[in-house]
Amino acid sequence: MTGARSAEIRVSEIFGPTIQGEGVLIGLPTVFVRTGGCDFRCSWCDSLHAVDSRYRDEWRAMSTEEVWREIAKLSGEEPVMVSLSGGNPAIQPLGDLIRRGHGEGYRFALETQGSVARDWFADLDVLVLSPKPPSSGMETDWDAFDACLRMSRDKPRTVLKIVVFDEADYAYAKTAAARYRQLPVYLQPGNHTPPPADDDEASIDIEGLMDRMRWLVGRVTEDKWFGAHVLPQLHVLLWGNKRGV
Amino acid sequence: MTGARSAEIRVSEIFGPTIQGEGVLIGLPTVFVRTGGCDFRCSWCDSLHAVDSRYRDEWRAMSTEEVWREIAKLSGEEPVMVSLSGGNPAIQPLGDLIRRGHGEGYRFALETQGSVARDWFADLDVLVLSPKPPSSGMETDWDAFDACLRMSRDKPRTVLKIVVFDEADYAYAKTAAARYRQLPVYLQPGNHTPPPADDDEASIDIEGLMDRMRWLVGRVTEDKWFGAHVLPQLHVLLWGNKRGV
Ligand code: SF4
Ligand code: SF4
Repeated sequence: MTGARSAEIRVSEIFGPTIQGEGVLIGLPTVFVRTGGCDFRCSWCDSLHAVDSRYRDEWRAMSTEEVWREIAKLSGEEPVMVSLSGGNPAIQPLGDLIRRGHGEGYRFALETQGSVARDWFADLDVLVLSPKPPSSGMETDWDAFDACLRMSRDKPRTVLKIVVFDEADYAYAKTAAARYRQLPVYLQPGNHTPPPADDDEASIDIEGLMDRMRWLVGRVTEDKWFGAHVLPQLHVLLWGNKRGV
Repeated sequence: MTGARSAEIRVSEIFGPTIQGEGVLIGLPTVFVRTGGCDFRCSWCDSLHAVDSRYRDEWRAMSTEEVWREIAKLSGEEPVMVSLSGGNPAIQPLGDLIRRGHGEGYRFALETQGSVARDWFADLDVLVLSPKPPSSGMETDWDAFDACLRMSRDKPRTVLKIVVFDEADYAYAKTAAARYRQLPVYLQPGNHTPPPADDDEASIDIEGLMDRMRWLVGRVTEDKWFGAHVLPQLHVLLWGNKRGV
């Protein structure tokens, strides 16, 4: 879908409630709004269907009210945590949606790589900043990242989440954590078998994931990095690469 | 070991740091102090080596200072989260240990079924109250449970953690959560293949665990119980029934 008006939100998928599989809200029932489009192209992106413009025909340009109605319907109108992810949800106009949902008692968490700052970050309940380590093939613009933090004005509960595949990523995570000592850190072992955007049933290397998880736990404890949380992607362990669960 | 003096702590094992595999502190590097002895006998207890008096020869009667030195050594004298579990750690004299550790910047989480209240609960950083559902074969004494909450004087971060095997357990969890609306709830699918106390290598029914986890996620979301967290035992997925990791 092209030609979205500026107030429209490009949506790749809305699904749930199911539990959050990652990071600080792990285990919490959540409705997921995955927006379409991203300013990054991480080598191991696990949401290509929400990133690659080849899939933009599947994205819908929706008004705030349309997105809100879908969230309310999925949750049976019972307030629930809403996860705004992507792609990069920061490139979508989500401020009105957050205000709309807050009025009904819903809460909002946003996950972004920290490349684009928005003033409505301050309205979030949870802000997950997920800078991309070297294995992604991306460069981090720390000035843009700092702007995200500034925009949030210390209002949301803000955490760092970093995917770690190897020693270089781990070193990057340590540097990022040292730069933002005030932020809780969540490390996540990388999945080198991310879902191809067009194959729901593609198999995952669960043993590889678990090995990387055990390695990362060992790395963190050896280093006495006792403030870092290490968590796998629970939904991948439970449901594989299947979408919409 | 018998004849422990009253100020001595009966210890089944001290190990770590490794990540906390369960509940509110999931993923956080932790040193575990598992005390010996329990006033309960849950049918599916996964810590029989710390409960059954057949194993009491393996328990050590240690002074506060001895336990403290072992924690400090394991953590390389770097402040870390310490988990006090058991058995029922509430029947041990742990108040001095908590004060000792706090002096060095360590934090303490205690997990107990809520049958025995101690004034030092108020000194904890995290109190995990884990009432036992019908499948355990135990009865909950809610007066004793209330006393635990009273003793904590709202000082620690306090949560409910409930193991769920079946519908009856689930109903129990809902009732307990309704009784303590102020407490965050963590539901954990039960492991019907807990470690036999004398066989480290005994196999676990991981698929059964995952099935129960998926069922529980479905149950919670169907019911729109959006405040409950559902989390598996991560250490079991990562390391099986092996002890000391
Ligand atoms: S920032 Fe996220 S959504 Fe965008 S390409 Fe990277 S992993 Fe994919
Ligand atoms: S209360 Fe805990 S340690 Fe005691 S028997 Fe039950 S499960 Fe085992």
